[in-house]
Order: sequence, then structure tokens, then C-alpha cells
Amino acid sequence: MSQNAAIALGSRLDAVRAASAARGLHALVVTHGPNVQYLTNLQSSAAIAVITPDEVFVFADGRYTTAFSELLAAGAGPPGGQLVPVDGSNSYDQTLGQWLGGQLPGCRVGFEAAYLTVKRHGAVVAAADTGRAAAGAPGVDLEPVEDLVEPVRAIKDATEVAIFREAARRLSRVAREVLAEAIQPGRTELDLAADIDHRMRQAGFERPAFDTIVASGPDSALPHAHPGERRLAEGELVLLDFGGVHNGYCVDLTRTTVVGRPVDGLRALYGAVAEAQDAALAVVRAGASAHDVDGAARAALARHGLAETFVHATGHGLGLEIHEAPRVGRAVAGSAPVVLAAGMVITIEPGAYVPGTGGVRLEDDVLVTEEGGECLTDVPRDERLG
Amino acid sequence: MSQNAAIALGSRLDAVRAASAARGLHALVVTHGPNVQYLTNLQSSAAIAVITPDEVFVFADGRYTTAFSELLAAGAGPPGGQLVPVDGSNSYDQTLGQWLGGQLPGCRVGFEAAYLTVKRHGAVVAAADTGRAAAGAPGVDLEPVEDLVEPVRAIKDATEVAIFREAARRLSRVAREVLAEAIQPGRTELDLAADIDHRMRQAGFERPAFDTIVASGPDSALPHAHPGERRLAEGELVLLDFGGVHNGYCVDLTRTTVVGRPVDGLRALYGAVAEAQDAALAVVRAGASAHDVDGAARAALARHGLAETFVHATGHGLGLEIHEAPRVGRAVAGSAPVVLAAGMVITIEPGAYVPGTGGVRLEDDVLVTEEGGECLTDVPRDERLG
Repeated sequence: MSQNAAIALGSRLDAVRAASAARGLHALVVTHGPNVQYLTNLQSSAAIAVITPDEVFVFADGRYTTAFSELLAAGAGPPGGQLVPVDGSNSYDQTLGQWLGGQLPGCRVGFEAAYLTVKRHGAVVAAADTGRAAAGAPGVDLEPVEDLVEPVRAIKDATEVAIFREAARRLSRVAREVLAEAIQPGRTELDLAADIDHRMRQAGFERPAFDTIVASGPDSALPHAHPGERRLAEGELVLLDFGGVHNGYCVDLTRTTVVGRPVDGLRALYGAVAEAQDAALAVVRAGASAHDVDGAARAALARHGLAETFVHATGHGLGLEIHEAPRVGRAVAGSAPVVLAAGMVITIEPGAYVPGTGGVRLEDDVLVTEEGGECLTDVPRDERLG
Repeated sequence: MSQNAAIALGSRLDAVRAASAARGLHALVVTHGPNVQYLTNLQSSAAIAVITPDEVFVFADGRYTTAFSELLAAGAGPPGGQLVPVDGSNSYDQTLGQWLGGQLPGCRVGFEAAYLTVKRHGAVVAAADTGRAAAGAPGVDLEPVEDLVEPVRAIKDATEVAIFREAARRLSRVAREVLAEAIQPGRTELDLAADIDHRMRQAGFERPAFDTIVASGPDSALPHAHPGERRLAEGELVLLDFGGVHNGYCVDLTRTTVVGRPVDGLRALYGAVAEAQDAALAVVRAGASAHDVDGAARAALARHGLAETFVHATGHGLGLEIHEAPRVGRAVAGSAPVVLAAGMVITIEPGAYVPGTGGVRLEDDVLVTEEGGECLTDVPRDERLG
């Protein structure tokens, strides 16, 4: 049963229907799990939703039919929601394709090109033709579309913002406690990661939002290091990147700290990243370019000769997925510019990674408002490094 | 850094090259993360490998270039491995496409149709044409292929089997301890799930292999229930489904137990599922049809009038992914029959779900041998229910 059963789906569906109609579509096939969940409240690894102007057809196999029927009975499913059962011996794509061919003849039907694989697309097209032939009907026009649901998801409503505030409050408390109590020389990265995960569970998170990163000493210079049997040692950096899922929504936080007193050179590195984070945060507001936010962080690091050490984007949107729209990075040739809007929740997480010395990353979760960026996470920086 | 750096990659690459050559391909583009890891030892969420007859080109962005270079330097990367850097401002698909167009003109190059999305496929094709034009070369022929890497992955080598034995031993110990110590009336499902995850970490697992399922009372009749605030009560069923990742490999176990003494009707349900598991396990051996294994479980449940309550497949392969080849289920029209082979590691997990009453699932991890199925997990059934 969804944790978000209280969230009203009507306005979400209206927005997606408007976007579909603007592209001349009669219906939209939604296959990406988080998009299905966002529009139906059904959590599943397989269900498909077909959004038509008046109905929402949810294709689900036996694992999810009871859950979806209960959602509908409780009034927590999508308005106009109908179950289309998928037989265990039949594939989703065959069922969907045959249904489209029989039920939506001659229609322009969008599908999520960023998620449907080449193989599944081929299976749906073939089955749609079978369904069409069986119904003696004209064919279905399956059109690849992008970014119909994601821009709606990117703007959080009041219920979602309230969930984020609570989630960020809990995650910040976990971070403050970990930094105060858990950083001890001799402890392994894996043991510390397990401790963090346990504290997140105790704080009420449903699960970690991703594999917790604990990277110490030279490993901190690997931006996506996996925690290992390495033991924390005096004077070296420890990078902690972790997040939790609360009521279905992901929050994400990184702090870099030091075991005891820092060895030479680490304060300058930390200071530069802190300056980059402040610079990026200062640019955040509704209407600002996400590329300018990224550029501000890069410019600050460049002033310290660290431009080449910042090897990832400045941030990303948060929501039902740990990485979702908007991307806060460099402009990409051939892609539309990314503009921030009120209600977006993004991370601001510049980093600098110097092989042999170590890496620093600082990450907070930020609500975009008309006035600026409101930091939802609240964890002091490390005074020994600042 | 990969936990599997000791695993030799030569024979894996040889097998994939032979399968590629048999389909007339000059090269294979591998985009599916676990397949990339299996063939390069690089763990990443984005890297791409291009397998040619003599080389392995690994496309990686700044987050992974150091890790891959270290793998190569340590002799733990793929033989003939070469790094192709992906610039942060360029996409993987553009870099790959342009490289293919310039480096493999006129070649037949396979791609993984089951993983590459329609959108990414379009981007690679467009960039390949740009690369071809820039080189003044003939075009690349990109061909959708399936199941070139997966059948190799499905047969575990001696190193992998040793990892599975150890992982199953650890998971079984966790399960025995949870069943003996952790099932108490009044405890919430979420609290019990957190306890299980903590015990898996203490047992040395890198992370849970999937979100732990704890479903009590009527919730146990939802095969994929999420743990919630429901409290365990006397006499009702509790279904526990959890798994861990050890040295990169996933193990998976389900037990259904009871709080105190079972209420009426639950023993018959449990007995039928236990009989179905035994019946399926008895069919497992190299050369057996996976559909016959599934059929044996279904027949046993049907004898108890429970045929309609078994709403999923009997099992699935285990490996770097929690669900991988082979599927142990009904035959699918249009798909090749699935035959078991020595070295496969599969789950056997029949279940029966009766709305209002509850659900029972029993799951073990089984190594397929020439003689039969060797159960790697070892957790006694519940005597109060058996």
C-alpha cells in the first residue's frame, strides 16, 4: 500500500493530460515506475498506466492487483482508474500492445522514449498490430515523447514540500549525531556505513535512498567510492554521503569531516568547496538558470586552482527518485536550458577531488522559492576544517 | 574499487566474443551496468564497454576514470582494456556514437536491445552518423541483440560459487537468529525490517539486495507488501523476505512464521506451500526444464485447491543482480524454453496468498548440479506450522 495514499492525483493528471494534448496525443503510456506511482499511487516494479482524457488504465499482474483494487476502493487511486489485469503467462508488453490495438484504434499514443527499451518497444508495436488486426481496426500511432510527466513532478506541491521539510529535519539530525558520535580512528568504512544506515532507520526512514558512501583518506578522492574495510586514521578526511526515503520521497546529504586534527592542505581544500557551495546557493531562486548556479560553483573552485578537480554536476532534483529533474549542471549542447522554478527541490553539492590528497564534497537540499534558495537540511560545517 | 578484482575476466570475454561472432557481429556495445561490471570489474552506474575481438574500450566519466585506471594498473581490469574518457559536458551516447562512427566504420555492432532505451538508441545512431561523416567513412550498422552476456553470467564459475556458499551461509544464520529472537507481538513491521537489515550488515553484507519485506497478518497476502506501522499480533502469519549483497553477489531468502500459536487454517496453507517447494526442488538438476520445476510447484498447490493463489513465478536466477537469468516460471509463448544447467544459482520460492487469511512463501537458494539441486540456504521450517 502506498505511503502517499493521501495525495490527491487529480491536478497531477490534469497537468499531464494538458501536456499530452499540447503534443497532439490522444493518450500517454507511462512505463517508468516512479511516474506510474506519481500518477496512480501504486508502488510497483512493473505496472503500466495509460492516461486517456477521462480514464487511467492500470496494467498490473497478480502481485499488485489486490493493492491497486484496495487503493481504488479507498478513494486513494487515480480518479477514473481501472485495472487491466496482466496474466502471469503473458507479458506486460503483449497485454498493453493488444489492448492499445483493440481499444485505441487510429489514435496517437505517446510512450516514454527515455525509459522504454528498444526490445519492449518492438514487442508493444508487434502486439498492437495483432490487436488491431483482431479488432479489424486502423493502427495505433505510437510516438516517442519525453518530459511529459517529469516537469510536473519537478514542481512539488504543498503536501510534498511538507514531506521534504520533515525528511530533511530527520536526515540533518542523523548527520549531526553521526558527526558528533561516530567518527573514530580505527573504525572501518563499512562499519560506519552500517551505523549510518541503522540511524536512518531509527529516525523513521523507510530505507536508504541509495548505497551509503563512506570514503576515508585517499579514497575520498573517488567521488563514488564504495565503503570498504579501510580503517579511519588520524588527520585524514572522511566523506559521508547518505540519504533516506520518507513517505516515498528521497533526501540526500553529504558532509566531509576529519578524524581528529587535519593534516596540512585539507583546510584550503575544504574552504574552497565551502565557498563554491555558498556561491551556488546565492544564485538559486525561481527564474534563475540552473547552469548559472553550476557556473558559480565552478568559478569559485577555479579561483582556487581547483577547476579540474570538480568532476560532476553541482546538483540534481529530488523526489520519488534520488536523481530527477532538474539537473543543475553545465549547459548541454542540443538540450534546452534548465530554468529553476518555485517548488523545485534540488541538491547543491560541489566537490573537489585531488588524487593522493583526498576529496571534499558538501551537499544540502534546497527548496527553490521566489526569493531564493531555502536550505532544508541544517548541519553545521566542520570548524576544524572551515 | 570492485570487490571482485580477483576474478579473472578472460574466459568471460572469450565467451561473449564467441557469442558475438556467432551472430556475425564485429563488436558489442554493453550498456547494462551489471554486464559492464561482469566484463570489466568496474562498478558504475553509467560506464559503457565496447567489446572488440582484441580490446575492451571502457567509456567512463570523471567519477570513474580513477577507479578504472587503478583496476588496469593492478591487473584487475579486462585484458586489452582501454579508457575512453567521457567529458562532463558531453553525453555518453554522443561520445559513444561519434567513437563508433570514427573507429568502427562499416562494422556490424550489436547493442543490448533489452536495456538501451529508444531515446538513447536514437542519440547513438545520430552521433554515429556524425562521427562517420567527420571521418569520411562508411556507416556503422547498429543491430539490436539480446542475451549475449546473460547466458554467460547465468553459469557461475568456481569463484562465484564459493561466494554464493559463503553468502548463503551468512544469510541463513541471520534468518535463524531473526526467527528465534525477533518475532514478538506488538513489534511493528518497519521495526522488524530495520532489525533484519542491521543484522545483515553485522553479518558482513555490503547492503540489502532489495527492500526487505515484512508482511504480517492480512498483509502477508500481498506478495510484494511494504513494511508499515502494523504491529505483529498473536496467532497470525509473518512473511519475511530479505537478501544481502556479498562480494557483489545477491542472495535471497523468504520464511513465513507465526507469532505464538497459529490460528486455524494456517497450518494447511503452510503445508501446501512446503509441499510445493519440495516438489519443485525435486525436479531441479542440470538438463531439466525450468518450466517443469515451476509446474511441479503449481501441481502441488493445485492438489490443495490453491492453484489460483500462486500469482508469481517459482524462482529466478541470482548473481550480480537479484533477478537475472534463468527465469523459473511458466513457458512463455514465443520465447525459447528455459533449460537448467550446472552452475546456475536459482531461487525456489512458491507461495500461496489468500486475501483475508494471509500468505505463505518459502524461498531457498539452490545450486544446479548434474545430480540435482543443492540447497545453499539452510533454515529449518517452522514446526508450529509444518
